[in-house]
Amino acid sequence: MNDPVADTVHELARRARVAARVLADTDRTAKDAALQAMADALLSDAPSILAANAADVQAARDGGTHEHLVDRLQLDSTRMSAMAEGTREIAGLPDPVGEVVRGSTLPNGLQLRQLRVPFGVVGIIYEARPNVTADAAALCLKSGNAVLLRGSGSAARTNASIVQSLRSAVESTGLPADSVQAVDAADRASAAHLMRARGLVDLVIPRGGAGLIRTVVEESTVPVIETGVGNCHVYVDAAADLDMALAIVLNSKTHRTSVCNSAESLLVHEAVAKDFLPVLVDALQSAGVTIHGDAAFQDASEHVLSATEEDFATEYLSWDISAAVVSSLDDAVEHIRTYSSGHTEAIVTGSLSAARQFARQVDAAAVMVNASTRFTDGAQFGFGAEIGISTQKLHARGPMGLPELTTTTYVMSGSGHVR
Amino acid sequence: MNDPVADTVHELARRARVAARVLADTDRTAKDAALQAMADALLSDAPSILAANAADVQAARDGGTHEHLVDRLQLDSTRMSAMAEGTREIAGLPDPVGEVVRGSTLPNGLQLRQLRVPFGVVGIIYEARPNVTADAAALCLKSGNAVLLRGSGSAARTNASIVQSLRSAVESTGLPADSVQAVDAADRASAAHLMRARGLVDLVIPRGGAGLIRTVVEESTVPVIETGVGNCHVYVDAAADLDMALAIVLNSKTHRTSVCNSAESLLVHEAVAKDFLPVLVDALQSAGVTIHGDAAFQDASEHVLSATEEDFATEYLSWDISAAVVSSLDDAVEHIRTYSSGHTEAIVTGSLSAARQFARQVDAAAVMVNASTRFTDGAQFGFGAEIGISTQKLHARGPMGLPELTTTTYVMSGSGHVR
Repeated sequence: MNDPVADTVHELARRARVAARVLADTDRTAKDAALQAMADALLSDAPSILAANAADVQAARDGGTHEHLVDRLQLDSTRMSAMAEGTREIAGLPDPVGEVVRGSTLPNGLQLRQLRVPFGVVGIIYEARPNVTADAAALCLKSGNAVLLRGSGSAARTNASIVQSLRSAVESTGLPADSVQAVDAADRASAAHLMRARGLVDLVIPRGGAGLIRTVVEESTVPVIETGVGNCHVYVDAAADLDMALAIVLNSKTHRTSVCNSAESLLVHEAVAKDFLPVLVDALQSAGVTIHGDAAFQDASEHVLSATEEDFATEYLSWDISAAVVSSLDDAVEHIRTYSSGHTEAIVTGSLSAARQFARQVDAAAVMVNASTRFTDGAQFGFGAEIGISTQKLHARGPMGLPELTTTTYVMSGSGHVR
Repeated sequence: MNDPVADTVHELARRARVAARVLADTDRTAKDAALQAMADALLSDAPSILAANAADVQAARDGGTHEHLVDRLQLDSTRMSAMAEGTREIAGLPDPVGEVVRGSTLPNGLQLRQLRVPFGVVGIIYEARPNVTADAAALCLKSGNAVLLRGSGSAARTNASIVQSLRSAVESTGLPADSVQAVDAADRASAAHLMRARGLVDLVIPRGGAGLIRTVVEESTVPVIETGVGNCHVYVDAAADLDMALAIVLNSKTHRTSVCNSAESLLVHEAVAKDFLPVLVDALQSAGVTIHGDAAFQDASEHVLSATEEDFATEYLSWDISAAVVSSLDDAVEHIRTYSSGHTEAIVTGSLSAARQFARQVDAAAVMVNASTRFTDGAQFGFGAEIGISTQKLHARGPMGLPELTTTTYVMSGSGHVR
């Protein structure tokens, strides 16, 4: 039963719990001072962080990692400045802790208040991008949670260097260094121990690809918030303005293809297919998009590939899109309910009843009416920053800001009340 | 791979999903009509339900079931009336579905609204008490969710009879009978398949003892809300009014011992121990409570048993209480954080700073200041009805009413907005 990796993770979690008690009782002024110190440290420690990152990048290239993954891993002074700036922005957001969610005085005179409080210890299990390290640390600290950061092995040197910088900064302002800790990614089992440390860790948030998220959901005994997989659809209704539809499809697909809120599938009502498909297919292909279409789409261009069942179920995260013509709004909803990952679904229509039906029936975290799928985003929603986009229904659904990193407690105050 | 029990559960879940789509789109008037019909049916079908219950009770007695468990299983006309009345009360509560949780118009003109929507399909896995069958069905229907009810084998005939009655009633008002379905309890594996039907079932709520809840939390891949285990403490502070403290301790322990919000452990500040312990120990013992105490409590009476580590960790649900003297508020908080199940913690004190510190530091779903632990209850909180008391931090914490049986969706409305 002696497992050194488990022991190490549990020891980190216990230290995080001690720090979490201090953080839960720390006011906004002190937390914001720590966040400003963290931002300062990211800038002043940039040379050593970039050196660590260069070693990670070199190792990745030596290992034959694809260049687009190397790009996600690589930091430069611009990205370092963005990390520091993001940390300062979080300092500027309201503190969710202590917010009275609801309150009342009961008929018997008891005073009931529901208050936001931190979770305690939050584990983040994530892939490549090292900016997640600073973002997650800042969001957790602001919401009063201690964080255990378990990044990918490929970014281990970078993440360790960032965490070291952040810990010194936090400690310099008088808060516990253990508010921010890295879990060693060298041993694959450390992630498994983190997600099974029920009682020590209050919440695990996986950020990464579908495989990582599936593993965490299957294996974790700690409560999980599932994030990010987006097989997002744009449905062009019979009552759509076709110029608007074209702009929304192009933006949803091509504005940034590697993100979860980009469109991966396209449905067009048959009433507008004859007019719209030639224009649409031409525009997508001119933009460099590969279309995997049904028979109607294939009729529109010889360059449209034949869509398989798997195409409709795939989150490409690339310059590909699946496409089909549907004979009704009901069919569009059925198709979406079959293949959707519950992230974002968009309808383009001038019909209020079509918009209402679509919004009620698609069952997604976000529904866009006459707007690009790309708007499902914490910053776009005005939340200031996000720890991820939840695609589950429990606790938080859609972009998760600071309030979603808290739980609540009821405080009831009486004068000797008994039942 | 062919598993008939799994196939049956999955088929029920698929039928529930079809019903859930209809329920999600059903207005309050129609849901309330179904709830009134359910209440009427419970009364008119009482003879057949009571006959089924008599068979369950007979089988339980024949199997040597303890009488206090038989009592939990047994229905009579009073309990049937209470079930019907409870259903009508739920009809009278506001509909949580469609509530706008927040909304704004963003700087770019996009209109953002966060709306409450049903989860979809909710599984309830519960023990003995057959009234849970009607309560859970009514709460789920009102919140627009289809429910899969997996009760205990010992109540199988009763639950089947209640569900048959409710299904006919629901159908008679034009809503789908499959809004309410029973999962056969004859095969133990049916519960396991229910909690692993991820993608078909949106949420599982276990209601029952610690063993059941642990199993569901460990095994489920469907998101779970943990309910009910309550190792609740009353802490009598140095600044307590001792008459008030005595009344609160007695009420918390003896008002009803078999429920999760009864007190199981008692802590007394040493500054008041000398005056308070003789009175307290005498009062508890006169009420019929067995005290498992530390040395100080044992000094107060020869009938105080010696408390073990396990006593402090136990939710007795009986006429027992563990008890200790602590040397400070900090020690009380430490003791509670070590042994608490995070349900309800009470402090009796006249000191505002002690009350504040206690509320901030104990980390529980509910904190009572100068009030009995027995107030942690949906009805007492004014929520009208509850599906359980959550002791987890994700999604809902404390008494769960109708809003906690919903999730949300963001609807964003634009006029061709792109990024």
